[in-house]
Amino acid sequence: MAKTKSPQLPKIGVVGSGSFATAIVKMLTENCKTVHWHVRNEFVKGAIQLRGHNPTYLPMVSFNMKQLKLTTDINELVEACDIVVLATPSIYLAGTLENLSCNYQDKLFCSAIKGIVPEYNDIVANYLRDKFQIGYKNQAVIAGPCHAEEVAMERLSYLTIAAAEQKDSEILSKIFSSFYIKVNESQDILGNEYSAILKNIYAIGAGIASGLGYGDNFIAVYVSNAIREMETFLEAVYPEPRDVNESAYLGDLLVTAYSLFSRNRNLGNLIGKGYTVKSAIQSMNMVAEGYYATNGIYSICKEKKLKLPIINTIFAILYEEKNAEKQFAKLTDKLN
Amino acid sequence: MAKTKSPQLPKIGVVGSGSFATAIVKMLTENCKTVHWHVRNEFVKGAIQLRGHNPTYLPMVSFNMKQLKLTTDINELVEACDIVVLATPSIYLAGTLENLSCNYQDKLFCSAIKGIVPEYNDIVANYLRDKFQIGYKNQAVIAGPCHAEEVAMERLSYLTIAAAEQKDSEILSKIFSSFYIKVNESQDILGNEYSAILKNIYAIGAGIASGLGYGDNFIAVYVSNAIREMETFLEAVYPEPRDVNESAYLGDLLVTAYSLFSRNRNLGNLIGKGYTVKSAIQSMNMVAEGYYATNGIYSICKEKKLKLPIINTIFAILYEEKNAEKQFAKLTDKLN
Repeated sequence: MAKTKSPQLPKIGVVGSGSFATAIVKMLTENCKTVHWHVRNEFVKGAIQLRGHNPTYLPMVSFNMKQLKLTTDINELVEACDIVVLATPSIYLAGTLENLSCNYQDKLFCSAIKGIVPEYNDIVANYLRDKFQIGYKNQAVIAGPCHAEEVAMERLSYLTIAAAEQKDSEILSKIFSSFYIKVNESQDILGNEYSAILKNIYAIGAGIASGLGYGDNFIAVYVSNAIREMETFLEAVYPEPRDVNESAYLGDLLVTAYSLFSRNRNLGNLIGKGYTVKSAIQSMNMVAEGYYATNGIYSICKEKKLKLPIINTIFAILYEEKNAEKQFAKLTDKLN
Repeated sequence: MAKTKSPQLPKIGVVGSGSFATAIVKMLTENCKTVHWHVRNEFVKGAIQLRGHNPTYLPMVSFNMKQLKLTTDINELVEACDIVVLATPSIYLAGTLENLSCNYQDKLFCSAIKGIVPEYNDIVANYLRDKFQIGYKNQAVIAGPCHAEEVAMERLSYLTIAAAEQKDSEILSKIFSSFYIKVNESQDILGNEYSAILKNIYAIGAGIASGLGYGDNFIAVYVSNAIREMETFLEAVYPEPRDVNESAYLGDLLVTAYSLFSRNRNLGNLIGKGYTVKSAIQSMNMVAEGYYATNGIYSICKEKKLKLPIINTIFAILYEEKNAEKQFAKLTDKLN
């Protein structure tokens, strides 16, 4: 890391200590002299300080500790930063931000969370807007196919950063780009956020299909239906000129539906193999965002009178205790 | 197989004795009382007759020999059939048809070949039209994500059958549908044929990337660029209203780019790992259609002045002895 870090970059911090948060901190240390990092508790903070890496997630990533400013105080982090990257699992977001009381109105909040905030059954962009009066123009979204494990290995990955203001996506692009990260800029904040959430649901379905014994031929048909369903959803909920075959939409769906790193796919796989939903969730030590997302997205579909066969099938299996094998048999007649 | 076979179906035959041809014969035996089958030589014919299966490809598929009429005489097969399914590797097609002299003008020729006829550097539909005066209206194309190995296992697969005349796609759909085969009908003959050819080239690229050490994050971006490139190609060469996210286009690309059954992907993988193109081809005992396809498709791109970064990269590696690692490094800057 002999490279000079740009001193004129905005001050940036990351909230979260899971694998994707850790990967983001690593990306930021490539360009930023200092990275602020909010972690869950003093134990995690002490462990990172002691060892120079996050012992629980991506332990192979060693940090230069002089670059990191660790804190467990959300107000301290937000006050110190111009840009706050939110990267907790969605189920921990509301709890993490509940004591936020400093002045944050001129900050840019950048969500790398790909899930529904369960307490509000809504996406992060709307939660920030409704609960904290942070308008979309002060928000950005980090999307794109990007397993944290591959960032740790410095394998080439492409992020898509969406912001309402082009100056914001430009600066974020500058901050994140490195020899292993390329950045696409976008203005489609909500489309990127919704697609990142939807793809987790579709990945659960790919896992269920695989667990039930469907093969590669079927999974390919399933994914080609999933991207069309995603397009229908985005058109209904947030119509914008967009090409769903760009990396942030299709690419992210592919990496999640096909990769064995995907916890959503793994959750589905257990269910397909016959585990109950409850026991499948309990057997995983990471949060499968798609579980909560299914409930939130299903509500939106109902409200908008959208009939999306895959979403309906996954909802019936996860929330109505319907038999996965029978539901998928019915679904196969609706795909093409 | 206690099911009654429909006696009123048209007489149908398959040309080819490789794995996909064998899979097609299996599909047809589900509905047709008799399936005519043209195989390469007397040795193959004798072996199938003796054993009740094709000993070289999909040997786990047992046939009821009373249903099969084997021949090595192309005229005998064509004369006996209303519909002729062509399913040889593309490099053997011209040789197989060279003695065709019977009256074939009222027959329907249905291509399941996903490649370029090397001697003519053209797709099968054009080769049949130009060499045999078989117009598009007497042709059909079988496409869709369908690895033969999974057909052998009776795993649910979706074919797309394209024909200019709806009556033809309807009857073919009836003939091919079974408890493990669902059929989509289409009128986009050339679009389906071109996309089936293109996807083999893109699969070689996915294999090269994988062999070079690129990870899942990159492959997802690569595939999302490939489908957009395919759309650009199809729009330029054969504009039609079509959704490239349907199974026959995107689905077939996915199964080929992601599946370990894919010989095109495997060819690329060897090249990515450092084999020369020649030695990689020699080490495989099956034909990787994408190799010949790259030459044919590249010619079309040149003629149409289409600049498609992935196709150009694969062509440079396969035909200009360019270094795969360097070519892919350059390509990464053109993807998004």
